[in-house]
This record gives sequence, structure tokens and C-alpha cells, in this order.
Amino acid sequence: MMQQVRVGWEELVRFTRGVFLSLGAGDEEAADSADILVAADAKGIVSHGTARLRRYVNGVLAEIMVPRTPFTVLQETPISLTVDANGAMGLHVSKQVMERVIRKAHDAGAAFASVRDSNHFGIAGYYAQMALEHDMIGIAMTNTAALGVPTFGREVYFGTNPIAVAVPASREAPFILDMSTTVVTRGKVETYAREGGSLPNGWAVDIQGLPTGDASTLLNTMLHQLGGGILPLGGSGELHGGHKGYGLAVLVDICTALFSGGTFGRAVMDSAETSARVCHFFGAVRIDRFRKPDEFKADMDRMLADLVQAVPAEGEKRIFYAGLKEHLHEEECRKLGIPLSVKVYQQLLDIADQQGVMPPEKL
Amino acid sequence: MMQQVRVGWEELVRFTRGVFLSLGAGDEEAADSADILVAADAKGIVSHGTARLRRYVNGVLAEIMVPRTPFTVLQETPISLTVDANGAMGLHVSKQVMERVIRKAHDAGAAFASVRDSNHFGIAGYYAQMALEHDMIGIAMTNTAALGVPTFGREVYFGTNPIAVAVPASREAPFILDMSTTVVTRGKVETYAREGGSLPNGWAVDIQGLPTGDASTLLNTMLHQLGGGILPLGGSGELHGGHKGYGLAVLVDICTALFSGGTFGRAVMDSAETSARVCHFFGAVRIDRFRKPDEFKADMDRMLADLVQAVPAEGEKRIFYAGLKEHLHEEECRKLGIPLSVKVYQQLLDIADQQGVMPPEKL
Repeated sequence: MMQQVRVGWEELVRFTRGVFLSLGAGDEEAADSADILVAADAKGIVSHGTARLRRYVNGVLAEIMVPRTPFTVLQETPISLTVDANGAMGLHVSKQVMERVIRKAHDAGAAFASVRDSNHFGIAGYYAQMALEHDMIGIAMTNTAALGVPTFGREVYFGTNPIAVAVPASREAPFILDMSTTVVTRGKVETYAREGGSLPNGWAVDIQGLPTGDASTLLNTMLHQLGGGILPLGGSGELHGGHKGYGLAVLVDICTALFSGGTFGRAVMDSAETSARVCHFFGAVRIDRFRKPDEFKADMDRMLADLVQAVPAEGEKRIFYAGLKEHLHEEECRKLGIPLSVKVYQQLLDIADQQGVMPPEKL
Repeated sequence: MMQQVRVGWEELVRFTRGVFLSLGAGDEEAADSADILVAADAKGIVSHGTARLRRYVNGVLAEIMVPRTPFTVLQETPISLTVDANGAMGLHVSKQVMERVIRKAHDAGAAFASVRDSNHFGIAGYYAQMALEHDMIGIAMTNTAALGVPTFGREVYFGTNPIAVAVPASREAPFILDMSTTVVTRGKVETYAREGGSLPNGWAVDIQGLPTGDASTLLNTMLHQLGGGILPLGGSGELHGGHKGYGLAVLVDICTALFSGGTFGRAVMDSAETSARVCHFFGAVRIDRFRKPDEFKADMDRMLADLVQAVPAEGEKRIFYAGLKEHLHEEECRKLGIPLSVKVYQQLLDIADQQGVMPPEKL
């Protein structure tokens, strides 16, 4: 177990908001951005939580992200919205666009938005989840810097391109699928590079397109687009369905970047000096346009309860469904505060010092 | 190479239509059903082509599918349609519903339908593809008899639950993703049971939830819901993302069955005597609601051409994208006729004899 400390949820939000304010973000930008980053920590998705704050700080200071900028609506119809984020930090603009998608779906029954020229937006599931209290299904996607290799290929062409879909239940915790369309994300490869050990077979290929377990070399050649990359969900070739994950990854590029006229494919690339100019997609659909929401949610409860009560495989303790682990982690954080690794906590203290913000207090 | 014969595309449609007419289908039902089954053969998806005709014949004769019945609209709004198929053969009703979804999307910008109490609808990609000529994105899904095991589980709970999404290009063949959300479909397991050999690791688990290579035992216990089943896309556990495929499979059940009030989970089960009463979902979205279709399709061309021109991995010949292999197979069938295994051809001759339809002529 990595050494960790706990920080109160509100305290961590307070600190993170303060950092965004110190970078020049407006009150709303700062509040939304803090809320979304800390939500990731609370769900246990630490790769997308305050561990990323350093990248936002550096990104804004290097002027590759804009801390405070309005977005431009390129096209709008009752069911659609095409948006240029004008290089903003991705968090606030995404929340605003999803709120607008939900308002539009209230009237039209369903609505969708495609957003270009944005930056990292945190966890996709956050935006999908916003639809739940409105008895809607929520959808969110983003493209990301190219790290994924097409089936039978050797060069990166698409990102880890996550898809999130949230569906409300009544008694049970909601179904919130939030999945990258590659086998794993860059963060997991970085963990292997840091801690040593060979990558599991079926995660990645080298510059010749052959299986590799060497995380450090992979990170170097992949990030500089010299060859090699992470395999799509389903792994190598077609035997285990790698072509399906590849198809889903391309689909995310289509919804996010081709609908919005943004950057796609291997052109989505970031560095310390440049922004990846990623693109997002959001959607909301009213359940009552198909069926009475109460009946729908009663069926959701029945299905989700069936799943968690099913007999686990020999040697396994229990069965989860999408979003349940994160929900349980959130419940724990509400009681005990949010766990941060000592390393991330130290990073936050350094940022506090650098930006002149009161550091987050340990519990 | 399996021994095969070729039959002209139109000739195979003529024969298949005749068989559906002989079963009591109306002119339109018969024409649509034949068109859809033969389209699968032409794409090289033989498991969903005329090899299935025997099941339709038996299903209708055993009165578990209705060859001619109108569907009932349970709810309709400008962007939505909830349909009861009343136990119809799935092919014709699905085409009719998708046509209506496309008409509705013409007016509203986007439209979706959820359909309950239907039967096998052939290839999902057929319906998604119908949207392309309208400069729309098309979506189709269906739930199927439960054969898939949740991550960490040992009992089936969801079907192979395919998702299809079609996206138009201009110069290049369209992007048509049509994927089951399990690692493989039942048909592939049946091939191993017939031809011998151990299933590849990561395809399936036995009644204890442990890895199995024994196709025959698996088919028996899985189809009778005694335990064991096919793993979700991503395979066993979470190491390669099996929980993602599991999430996608559940999502298909939600869109198809929970939106329509139909049958979901392990209750979706078919046998020689009973129908699985499967549920479908269809959608269409106008591209021009986001961006000029010409610009969009030019970007699609650029992306798809990038992918096929990328350097393949050592030992691989070329890179495809979703729908390209099937497109190339169709082109070949247009010139040379449709290949059928000798075994399937013999089945068709038997059906011809049984139903009094002129048999399909070999080329």
C-alpha cells in the first residue's frame, strides 16, 4: 500500500479552487475546475484528480491553456451545439456545455454538443453523470493525445479516447460507464516505467508493431511518435476483438473532432510547450421520451441488483457494475476524507507555496 | 479452405424471398428479409446470412416467430419511438422502424427508437448503414440470448449484444463499426466445438468461472444457463479491460430492453420451442446539425485514407478500418456472385425442396 494522507473533501476543493484563482481563472471557472478534479479523487480515479493540478499550473503559466475565456458557439439547433473552446482549460467549458445540452434536451428530448480546441477535461463520467438528476441518460467523450495503435499497425493514430455513459437507477447506485477505448491508459504504462516490471502481454507494441513489455522505451517512442503504442481494447490482432476497441476509438474521434471540425488522429499531440487541442462530445437523452422514468428505474434497480448478487467466479469476492466501485469509494471519502498519496500531497504543498495559496490541511 | 459454390446476388435474394413468401410473409416482409440476410453473406458475415434461413423456417413453422404482423407504436415524440414488434421476425420490422427513425431525424435533427418483443434481426450494420445516404450517422443495437458472463462472474447475464455505428465518407468506403460486445460470438465457439481444438485463452469461463478451452461443454452449460459463458470484450478480469466490454454489453441491454420495457438479462433465452423476444435500438443523427456534411466527409476521407496507408506491423500486410473488409467482400460478390459453403448451399436446397421454392442456381 502506497503511503497516503487524507484531506477533507471541502478542504481539497477550497485549496484547488484557490490555485485556479491564483492562475487568473474567474470565480466560476475556478469553482467548477476544482469540483471536477476533486470528484475524480473521490471516485478513486487518481490519475485524473489533483495529481493533475501541476499540469494545469504549468499549462497556464506556459500560456498553452487559457484560464479564463468564453467559448464560441459555431452552430446551434434545438438538438445540437457546435462549440469552439478557444483553447480554454477543458473543465469549466465542458461543464457549461453539458449544462446547456441538458437544458436543450429538456425542451427537445435529446441534445448533443461537439466541442473543438479545448484541453484536458478530467473524468468524462463527471459530465455524463450531470444528466442523472434530470432523469436523462448522459454521454461524454473526448479525444486525447495519440497513443493508440490501430489493429495490425505500428504507429499511433488515436488517443485513449474515453466514452462515458451514465444511466440513473432508483434504489441502486447509478450505472456510470467511463472507459478508455485502449486496453489501458498512459498513466498505467507510466506506473510500470516508474516501478519497473514488464508490461502485461497484450497491452502495447513496439516500433515494429511487435509485442513489448518495456514501458520506458515505449513511453519514449510513443510520445514522440517514433513508433509503438498502446493496443486498442481487445488487444493485439483480431483474435480477442482488438479491431472492436480500434473501431470505438475512431468513433470517438469522429464524434468529438470530425463533428466539430477539430484536431484528430496523430495530429492530437501535446508536449510541455504545446496544447493537444483536444475535442469533446456531450449528449443527454430524456428517458420519458421512451418510457415512464419510474418504470425504467425500477428495471434498472432489478438489473443492477441481479448483477451484484450473482455468484462470483471461484476465487473472486463479488461482482460489480460500471460505476459501483467509484460510488463506494465516494461514500468512503464522504466519511473519511479523500486519500492522496504522500507524493501527490507533497506536490500540492509545493503548488501552494509557488502560487501563494493556503496549503490543504491533512485530516 | 472450405469447399464453396457461388450464387448470383439477385438469384440468392430471389430464392430467399420465395422462402419467406412460402412461410406466409407479405411481399414487403419477404423482400426486406431476403435483402438483409443476403447482405450479410455479401459482407462475408456468413453467420448472419442465409445460413440462418433454416432457423427462420423452423421458427415460423413452430409458431415462435410471426411472419406477418404489424408493429405497435407504444409512444412517439419528434425524437423518439417506442415499439412493440409483437413477436415478428426481426428483419422487416427493424427496417421499417429504421426508415421511420430516419424520416423523424430529417425533421428533428436526430431520432431514436427502442423496440421490444422482436426476433433475430440479422446484421446490426445493415440498419446503421441505411442512414448513410441521408448524410446521417446511423446506430443499431440488439440484445441477444444471454451468453456473456460479467467480470468476476460465472453465470451468463447478457448477450453478445452488438453495437453498430455507420458514418459516411465521400471518396472512401464508409466507416461501419458492427461489433459484438463479447470477445467472440456463439458462432465462433460452435466452430471450435465442430472442428475440435481448444478455445483460445481469454474467450470463455466454465461453470466455476475459471478459464476453459472446452467448446462443447461450454456450449452445453452456457445455453442451458448451468454456468459458464463467453467473456466480455477485454477478456477475463480487469487487467485487459474486461470490465469495459461488460459495461458496453449492459449498456446495450439498457438502450434496447430497458428503454422499451422488454426482456433483459438472463431472461433473454431461446430454444427450439421459445423465442428470445429480443429488443433493438436504432438511431439517426444529421451531420449538418453540427457541421457542413461536405467538410465532414472530406475529413472522414482524410482519416480513413491515413489509416489504410499507415505502415503495418512487422509480418502484417495492411491496416483496415471498421467496415472496409466487408466493403471489399461486397465488391467481389458484385462481380463474382456470393460464396456459400457447400454445407449451407445444401441446406438451402433442402429448404427449397421442403417449401416448394425453385432452388438457387449455382454460377
